Amino acid sequence: MLNRFCKKPLYEVTRTLAKVATGAEKAELVIRNAKLVNVCTAEIQEGMDVAVSEGRIALVGNAAHCIGENTKVIDAKGQYIAPGFMDAHIHVESAMVTVSEYARAVVPHGTTGIFMDPHEICNVCGKDGVRFMIEDAKGARLKAMSNAPSCVPAVAGFEDTGSSIDSEDIREMMSWEGIMGLGEMMSFPSVVNADERIHAELAETLKSDNIITGHYSVPETGPGLNAYIASGVRCCHESTRAEDLLEKMRRGMYALMRYGSAWHDMPVIIRAILDNHIDDRFACLISDDTHPDTLIQDGHLDHILRCAIKEGLDPIKAIQYVTINPATCFRMDHEMGSIAPGKCADIVFFRDLQDIRITRTIIDGDVVAEEGRMTVDIKKQEFPAFVRNTMHVGEEITAASFSIAAPAKWSESGAEKEENSGRIRTRVIEIIPNKVGNYERFLDLPVKNGFVEADPEQDVMKMAVFERHHETGTKGAGFVKGFGFRKGAMAQTVSHDAHNLLVAGTNDEDMALAANTLIACGGGMCAVQDGKVLALVPLPVAGLMSDKPVEEVAEQIRMLDDGWKKMGCSINSPYMTMALIPLACLPEIRLTNRGLVDCRSFSFTELFPG
Amino acid sequence: MLNRFCKKPLYEVTRTLAKVATGAEKAELVIRNAKLVNVCTAEIQEGMDVAVSEGRIALVGNAAHCIGENTKVIDAKGQYIAPGFMDAHIHVESAMVTVSEYARAVVPHGTTGIFMDPHEICNVCGKDGVRFMIEDAKGARLKAMSNAPSCVPAVAGFEDTGSSIDSEDIREMMSWEGIMGLGEMMSFPSVVNADERIHAELAETLKSDNIITGHYSVPETGPGLNAYIASGVRCCHESTRAEDLLEKMRRGMYALMRYGSAWHDMPVIIRAILDNHIDDRFACLISDDTHPDTLIQDGHLDHILRCAIKEGLDPIKAIQYVTINPATCFRMDHEMGSIAPGKCADIVFFRDLQDIRITRTIIDGDVVAEEGRMTVDIKKQEFPAFVRNTMHVGEEITAASFSIAAPAKWSESGAEKEENSGRIRTRVIEIIPNKVGNYERFLDLPVKNGFVEADPEQDVMKMAVFERHHETGTKGAGFVKGFGFRKGAMAQTVSHDAHNLLVAGTNDEDMALAANTLIACGGGMCAVQDGKVLALVPLPVAGLMSDKPVEEVAEQIRMLDDGWKKMGCSINSPYMTMALIPLACLPEIRLTNRGLVDCRSFSFTELFPG
Repeated sequence: MLNRFCKKPLYEVTRTLAKVATGAEKAELVIRNAKLVNVCTAEIQEGMDVAVSEGRIALVGNAAHCIGENTKVIDAKGQYIAPGFMDAHIHVESAMVTVSEYARAVVPHGTTGIFMDPHEICNVCGKDGVRFMIEDAKGARLKAMSNAPSCVPAVAGFEDTGSSIDSEDIREMMSWEGIMGLGEMMSFPSVVNADERIHAELAETLKSDNIITGHYSVPETGPGLNAYIASGVRCCHESTRAEDLLEKMRRGMYALMRYGSAWHDMPVIIRAILDNHIDDRFACLISDDTHPDTLIQDGHLDHILRCAIKEGLDPIKAIQYVTINPATCFRMDHEMGSIAPGKCADIVFFRDLQDIRITRTIIDGDVVAEEGRMTVDIKKQEFPAFVRNTMHVGEEITAASFSIAAPAKWSESGAEKEENSGRIRTRVIEIIPNKVGNYERFLDLPVKNGFVEADPEQDVMKMAVFERHHETGTKGAGFVKGFGFRKGAMAQTVSHDAHNLLVAGTNDEDMALAANTLIACGGGMCAVQDGKVLALVPLPVAGLMSDKPVEEVAEQIRMLDDGWKKMGCSINSPYMTMALIPLACLPEIRLTNRGLVDCRSFSFTELFPG
Repeated sequence: MLNRFCKKPLYEVTRTLAKVATGAEKAELVIRNAKLVNVCTAEIQEGMDVAVSEGRIALVGNAAHCIGENTKVIDAKGQYIAPGFMDAHIHVESAMVTVSEYARAVVPHGTTGIFMDPHEICNVCGKDGVRFMIEDAKGARLKAMSNAPSCVPAVAGFEDTGSSIDSEDIREMMSWEGIMGLGEMMSFPSVVNADERIHAELAETLKSDNIITGHYSVPETGPGLNAYIASGVRCCHESTRAEDLLEKMRRGMYALMRYGSAWHDMPVIIRAILDNHIDDRFACLISDDTHPDTLIQDGHLDHILRCAIKEGLDPIKAIQYVTINPATCFRMDHEMGSIAPGKCADIVFFRDLQDIRITRTIIDGDVVAEEGRMTVDIKKQEFPAFVRNTMHVGEEITAASFSIAAPAKWSESGAEKEENSGRIRTRVIEIIPNKVGNYERFLDLPVKNGFVEADPEQDVMKMAVFERHHETGTKGAGFVKGFGFRKGAMAQTVSHDAHNLLVAGTNDEDMALAANTLIACGGGMCAVQDGKVLALVPLPVAGLMSDKPVEEVAEQIRMLDDGWKKMGCSINSPYMTMALIPLACLPEIRLTNRGLVDCRSFSFTELFPG
């Protein structure tokens, strides 16, 4: 498809490039004496030059004749150069910063392009949110190519989102300049079952000659997977078993291996490639979701490359997985993904092929980062009111908002009755730390004065999800086990995918304070104990992203982690596991603003089985 | 780009395919128990089924649940199946039959798609000729995807063609449904030298998001090749040295290895791949020009595959070179080129991976050929008058039309004068049998009565090229050495690229008869001796293609070969070498309807150096 993510389209500059290649005109930039990681032929070529003008590569080889008085010359001094890295599937919102700030974090690590799926902000702000992300990206240097979110809400009928997307919206978004494809098609059951509404979205994407990106998260490689791929889905990042990855590649699906902050699938699934002698042109490495602290401490695709190489992957292949392969997946390989004449001059430098540490990043022929820091300014967009003003909870939240009455039937029954107190059998969500799945459990919880309470003895917290987009006043209530809270409460507006206001705690007072703290600051994440705010990460942009630099957000998150620990939680990045509790497309049981959802039967279920 | 070459676009049938994959609806066709040549992962998978509906693949794996009462089931009985073969660069006109007839010849050999460049007919009939080819292809089953001819005339200013193409024409053709890209950009010096007119054609192609196909025929891999690739050219089929092929692939250019009837580059250039451990995703096998007799005797891409495998190429890689690789070159890999869900059901069957002989061809889910024969009718188009009526020579041709007067200066000089007879130093074209190049020679030719004559003793024939498109009455005259004619004449309207009327012979009378024989039958090729037509291949469609079946044309050409032999010529396919004599983009010296062209300096030159 036509490339809007370049300094100038190729058709405007072919004559200039030809002149530069022949020396009739001098290059703007020449890189000399580099070890070229040639991703086209999978070779290292030593002593190579690259001549660049108008943001594009004019020549690869010996560029002595391309150098003039005004040519900027970079002597690579034998460093490696490779095409800039591209992430084929990424949600910028997970980094809790806006695109421009995300760019500042990842470009020094060698990322020059991302295919982002802004479905988090779309759930909150709709198409306007998507457009905000695309606009914010414009000043970011990073090529933030966007997909149009496909599943908003994630599972229709079980929650209330700020917005929803249908095939008409898809048709409209496909005409936008920044849109390259359809965002991850999470409603794979709807695809497999030939649902008309969902297939209308697929059709609009295909008609516009764009890419459908996938999300096929079940370990099934028979009829279901075939139906899904036959519907036009080109890639999938949800393989968790090596055999799933292999079967997807065998069916011509780009197999994106995930290595994000929380989900580390790559080391397992890469065995499909390492243990089989297969053509790996369909393999990519992606991050999906990366937190600010991971970006700061480890990096982005450079970190994933290092991890893949440690697993035994050939470094040149690894680099193909973040350059020419994702470019070909998105049918953009004629424009980017290789260091070759005519392509955008997106180039990274590093010294060690086995331990890739980026020393310089060039985008569209401009040096934009050196030695870990941006060398150019990134223009930050003003945040319009509609993204800053997204906390619209339909009730004034007090401690009473969190009370859960025991059912009348129970209070009438004699057996357990003692001043309306005792224990009641309750359906509880039990989390699995660092996994996306959970379990349905049945536990006896304490009742006091007719109200069911949290039970730290059993590691059970009370939980509530308040609709926060349209003041409907709806809320769901339930219990969750597994976070280890002894005392206190947390709240967060990062709660997939509707991003309603999620509150959990051991007591109603702290829960109310946590909720109101976030309402006051426009959303975010906080930890509260004994009537005091232990930590607060304000995320005023749609309740998902900070307006602060990524380093500052990382520090706020570190403090939040401390807060959670103080309350007794010792699991890793607990807010991530927490954030998935409302996501009704994951097994087994979820809590949304409409109530408890049994995700095996896709039906609402009762808190008290009675 | 959007695929018009399918039974139904994917977006219309995703729901049906999903239903078939899950068994909710039954398949139209199921292939059972095949050895699948998986070009995605480069593996052989045994015991595989393929379910098909609406012309597309719904499932690959176990398709038992897809079979219903009305499902056609083909038991492959362990035969191999592979994606249908695609030729990434082919001139159908070289087969001297129209597209529908060409399809009848190649589809039984496993060819399901071609990317054709109809620049021969375009030189004669202009854009209408291109459209005629596209229309003729519509009933042909074969997916004849067309490029828009880029260089008509091949070398502007040195010959007269029936039509010419500029960037406006390119812009128009890019909007046609059957057009996939720009035809081979033969004016590589114009590209390299940043010629505005040629770069305008490139720009129109790139703007329309189509592919530019290349023709870079010089052994130079430095500034020139870089300039050419930087201008957006995606592939090239003109490599004749292994190192050229390698350097093109290293620069992200699809390297099309040619193995046609006359030019056998593949065995030499494939060493670039066989001798280097490189990624070969940019490699393709193509035919360029194939004669009717080759198609009948050897086949098409199946033949080329067998030859490549004999050279030592892994058969699975060889099949990738005619399936997924050309599909990716044309950015159509999401639609064709692999046996995978959603793709067009273009599938071939064969028994032996080392010696590929096609037993069945399926296109869009229909069995179209079995055991070497088409099993469906091919609809042949009526030939409109403008393609049948293309002989417009501007003079009545007689023996006198061929007389070449010795220059006045010569006839006045005393030394050589003897009744205006004797010998004169003359610039002669010397051909190199079976090569595209030729040599400039200076020979003393006999003069009688003031006219220079052919000299069979020195193997020199007289030659003339008559403009035949617009009755301009222009003609070029000269001499050619190397065909071995002792007596007789030949004429042909296949004479690249202007396809003017080319006549050569030992005497003017036979030459006149040969010329008039072709004028009478609408063009073609003929051999004449002693006032008798020895052989005639009528090519009434634009003077390039027959209206007869390919077998009949092959037989006519065999008889023409006999005729040439009878006149004394023993070289292989001499009419091919003859046909290139007017092609001014080849070295060293050429004869067009405007005269002798020195192709080293791109200037006209004198017959008599004087």
